[in-house]
Amino acid sequence: MEKIIRINMDNLETKIEEVAKEYQLLGARCLTSMIVFNEIPPLCNALERNNKLIFAPGILGGTIAPSSNRLSAGAKSPLTGGIKECSAGGPGGQKLGKMGVKALIIEGKPKQKKLYILIISHDSVKLIESENLRGLGTYDTTKKLIKEYGNKTTVISIGPAGEMKMGSANIAATDAEGKPTRQFGRGGLGAVMGSKGIKAIVVQDPGNIHPHIQKDVEFKNLVRTFTKALIKNPVSGSVFSNYGTAVLVSAINEFGAFPTRNFSSGKFEMAENISGEKMTEIIKSRGGKVGHPCAPGCVIKCSNIYVDKNGEEITGGFEYESICLLGSNLGIGNLDEIAQLNRLCDDYGLDTIEIGAVLGIVMEAGLIEFGDYKGVVRLIKEIKEGSIIGRVLGQGATITGKVFGITRIPAVKGQAMAAYDPRAIIGMGATYATSPMGADHTAGASVMTYIKGEPGNQVNLAGEYQIKSTALENTGLCRFVSYALFTDRNAMDSMLKMIGAKYGINISEKAFLNWGLETLKIERKFNKLAGFNEAHDTLPEFFKEEKLPPYNKVYNLPDKELKKITEQWE
Amino acid sequence: MEKIIRINMDNLETKIEEVAKEYQLLGARCLTSMIVFNEIPPLCNALERNNKLIFAPGILGGTIAPSSNRLSAGAKSPLTGGIKECSAGGPGGQKLGKMGVKALIIEGKPKQKKLYILIISHDSVKLIESENLRGLGTYDTTKKLIKEYGNKTTVISIGPAGEMKMGSANIAATDAEGKPTRQFGRGGLGAVMGSKGIKAIVVQDPGNIHPHIQKDVEFKNLVRTFTKALIKNPVSGSVFSNYGTAVLVSAINEFGAFPTRNFSSGKFEMAENISGEKMTEIIKSRGGKVGHPCAPGCVIKCSNIYVDKNGEEITGGFEYESICLLGSNLGIGNLDEIAQLNRLCDDYGLDTIEIGAVLGIVMEAGLIEFGDYKGVVRLIKEIKEGSIIGRVLGQGATITGKVFGITRIPAVKGQAMAAYDPRAIIGMGATYATSPMGADHTAGASVMTYIKGEPGNQVNLAGEYQIKSTALENTGLCRFVSYALFTDRNAMDSMLKMIGAKYGINISEKAFLNWGLETLKIERKFNKLAGFNEAHDTLPEFFKEEKLPPYNKVYNLPDKELKKITEQWE
Repeated sequence: MEKIIRINMDNLETKIEEVAKEYQLLGARCLTSMIVFNEIPPLCNALERNNKLIFAPGILGGTIAPSSNRLSAGAKSPLTGGIKECSAGGPGGQKLGKMGVKALIIEGKPKQKKLYILIISHDSVKLIESENLRGLGTYDTTKKLIKEYGNKTTVISIGPAGEMKMGSANIAATDAEGKPTRQFGRGGLGAVMGSKGIKAIVVQDPGNIHPHIQKDVEFKNLVRTFTKALIKNPVSGSVFSNYGTAVLVSAINEFGAFPTRNFSSGKFEMAENISGEKMTEIIKSRGGKVGHPCAPGCVIKCSNIYVDKNGEEITGGFEYESICLLGSNLGIGNLDEIAQLNRLCDDYGLDTIEIGAVLGIVMEAGLIEFGDYKGVVRLIKEIKEGSIIGRVLGQGATITGKVFGITRIPAVKGQAMAAYDPRAIIGMGATYATSPMGADHTAGASVMTYIKGEPGNQVNLAGEYQIKSTALENTGLCRFVSYALFTDRNAMDSMLKMIGAKYGINISEKAFLNWGLETLKIERKFNKLAGFNEAHDTLPEFFKEEKLPPYNKVYNLPDKELKKITEQWE
Repeated sequence: MEKIIRINMDNLETKIEEVAKEYQLLGARCLTSMIVFNEIPPLCNALERNNKLIFAPGILGGTIAPSSNRLSAGAKSPLTGGIKECSAGGPGGQKLGKMGVKALIIEGKPKQKKLYILIISHDSVKLIESENLRGLGTYDTTKKLIKEYGNKTTVISIGPAGEMKMGSANIAATDAEGKPTRQFGRGGLGAVMGSKGIKAIVVQDPGNIHPHIQKDVEFKNLVRTFTKALIKNPVSGSVFSNYGTAVLVSAINEFGAFPTRNFSSGKFEMAENISGEKMTEIIKSRGGKVGHPCAPGCVIKCSNIYVDKNGEEITGGFEYESICLLGSNLGIGNLDEIAQLNRLCDDYGLDTIEIGAVLGIVMEAGLIEFGDYKGVVRLIKEIKEGSIIGRVLGQGATITGKVFGITRIPAVKGQAMAAYDPRAIIGMGATYATSPMGADHTAGASVMTYIKGEPGNQVNLAGEYQIKSTALENTGLCRFVSYALFTDRNAMDSMLKMIGAKYGINISEKAFLNWGLETLKIERKFNKLAGFNEAHDTLPEFFKEEKLPPYNKVYNLPDKELKKITEQWE
């Protein structure tokens, strides 16, 4: 039997609820967004008791389907003021899926300023006061909790940034090795968790239980077909496992879309030093790991373990976005340094994209120089200390820009952009502008079309990809299955049939895509009630006015073109 | 001939333009808002070149009509992101009205970071580089400029806060004595002026010129009738000249609407020490001045000159709002101290309301204790210095609250509330919530109905008063004429006929009120294009959930009731 676990922090009570019929075929983002819409008053203060924090695996979560371990977190965002979902890898989604947990809903607010941990096992839910964890980074937090609860445990925790309720605070989930390298990165969800007084969620190993599959044998066969299709596709089958997502560095830099020095150039003169190829070379020469799966059963294996010259782990899940935002965007061209910054952000519970944008802004303001690695370390430590400058930076790019009088703020709906300058990738700009999440590359990325040299109609693609990405997020499958899913009929058919076999139904591709569309509609509706209108579906003025070197492009897509995307969601 | 003066800071050119026909019967807020709507792209960054700063006297400005000297300033607000107008007293509006200046429009942005002064006389417009004024307070700035340009000059200047483009930066106009005590207070218009590189506008005495009046003799007779009506009304005739606006302290405190310690109580135990009665007693005993007119020809004379024990001027135009926000809201119950804080804010170019709210928030956060006068002085000086904490505070209540993790932020649309807790004055809450300006007491205040003990239907009143207030702002008449205007037929008739006599037309009361309605429509339209929707027409959550001592009221007017006000403006 599937269930919803509700944790009320007002009175520290937990209860198990049946799954409403309308939620049965929903998972991950499609479910968190529906619960946000149904339960959270859109005008509430995101850091107060009326907000809720929801975790949900996808509808294939916990099954043996490959790469189906994504776990979504949703809430009203303290950063954007709108609806928010972000997902992370690691085995947490699998475990909750195995236990039949459709969603965790954390609501209310403790009467006293205390910290708690939430322990979830297949047959119990407990809240335990844990003041001893206050102020700890996610590395120490997870180390202590894994020591206490066993190394098969997944820990989902916040760092000092989340405790301080900062807008750039993320939530860290442990990977297969128990390191907190998988991030629910965007929108300040760590601050929501902090406002609920939850320092960590301990998801215990459910052991040998599995979600109920209506047609078990058929399901296993379909998994085989689907896995083959993923491996056959060059991107999901080998490129990411060989080079990680950092493989994008060279390509994006090549066509001048690589954010450099606070989005003032699209090419970075030291790109080669921080490329995927270089990273793989370094990792291999030092005995780290590339082609690392963030959870058992992942066949894409985009993750990695980045080690220092002595072979000691610096960071893991070291990704393209972080390398750009903490690297080229700050004028830093040394992978070891960027890896250290990535580690610091993960440890303190900070979104690398938001913080990279923040630091680019204060460098433009002259607080420190571009390229000043030591200055960056010092500022990130200020965030952890909660000093006044640290509190400003921790609030994210939009507030930092205002405080420092900088008008070149690369953000939409209050959230910083990822590592693609929209002036050079029109469709990414269209997605940044229209996504209900704020500037979010995962919402629907048209990057590959540029890499293939076939950009096509970028407005149509941004609309189409947002629906596809959102639909895919219902399943809990990693977004990187999409390279196979949307190009290989075998992949799509086997995925649809896996869902069908699990629930004993037939699912058409149209019904599958409709999950995406309906979720976008719900999200847009929530945002409207929370105070967004069409005027928010736009890029900051400077992208429209300032030419991006070296190809001197401005973002010249008129906002009214973007309505072609959003009018489908009304 | 009336004219519009346009100053282009891109190329430092100025030009004189004819007044478009549609602008002829518009003045002050009704004109600035129309120009904002017609000329400013709603999505522009408020601190960049596409924003414009507009000054306009009312349609009776420069005439001999009493108390007709208000000057409006308008722009897109860097604080709220929406349309903004605020007006100030002092003789500036009279002078521009005499010169036939319908509006000054300052646009563009200097290519180099330089400061300029703009010199306006009846026959010339000049821009002069004035780096020597950089960093000066408004007191020193005006002193220098009056010394140079003569003591009949009106100076409109910004302080360091405006130069640093802070969201709480105001613009100071000199009063009849040449002191910078009259503030265009709200919404960060000082920052817009700073972004244009204008340190000060010097309005030279036009001498013996007058605006053209079609029926001059009739006009003079009507002025007499209108003046009599103002004097006959107890509020405009004597209460304000005897006690200043601080007369409200006792009344508002009495019915528990007096914001105290960051809006956590509606009564202040030291209210008596900071009341209008006390202020008048102090001023009279020390040889200061009550019943001071901010410009020649004012019969209401609500202003004052507050002096220290040696009879030296501390501050002028010392008003109820400042006394509450810098006094009770900070737990400070000493008028001398509050007067010093008022002086500092005026000198640095800071809005006393916004800064009072900011300081209440950081006191709640524990940065300093409530009542800590020295701590407040230190923090206000930090703003002037542009230190990091200073830059945060200077950005206003909403950003300060976020940075310090405080969720009790008394602001609407990003702008802090004035000195009336909406939980105890329902209609003021309705005006705060719905005004296109953000929380603004001048937009339509139902306070008097509570003072009279006849609150009536506060939603209807908030709607009605907003239309009336806005209509009145077309004229340049002080808002305090409204006590007579809307209760005494002689006042209304003579005012309508004065306008008629000036332009040689007939104006009905309905046509007069229609100016207000049409302006509100235009403002709401601009705000919609700038990103506001109905969800912004609400009060912060804590007013709806937290009981206000001592009468334990919450704000229980449902948001849908407020639509009765705003649907008239669609």
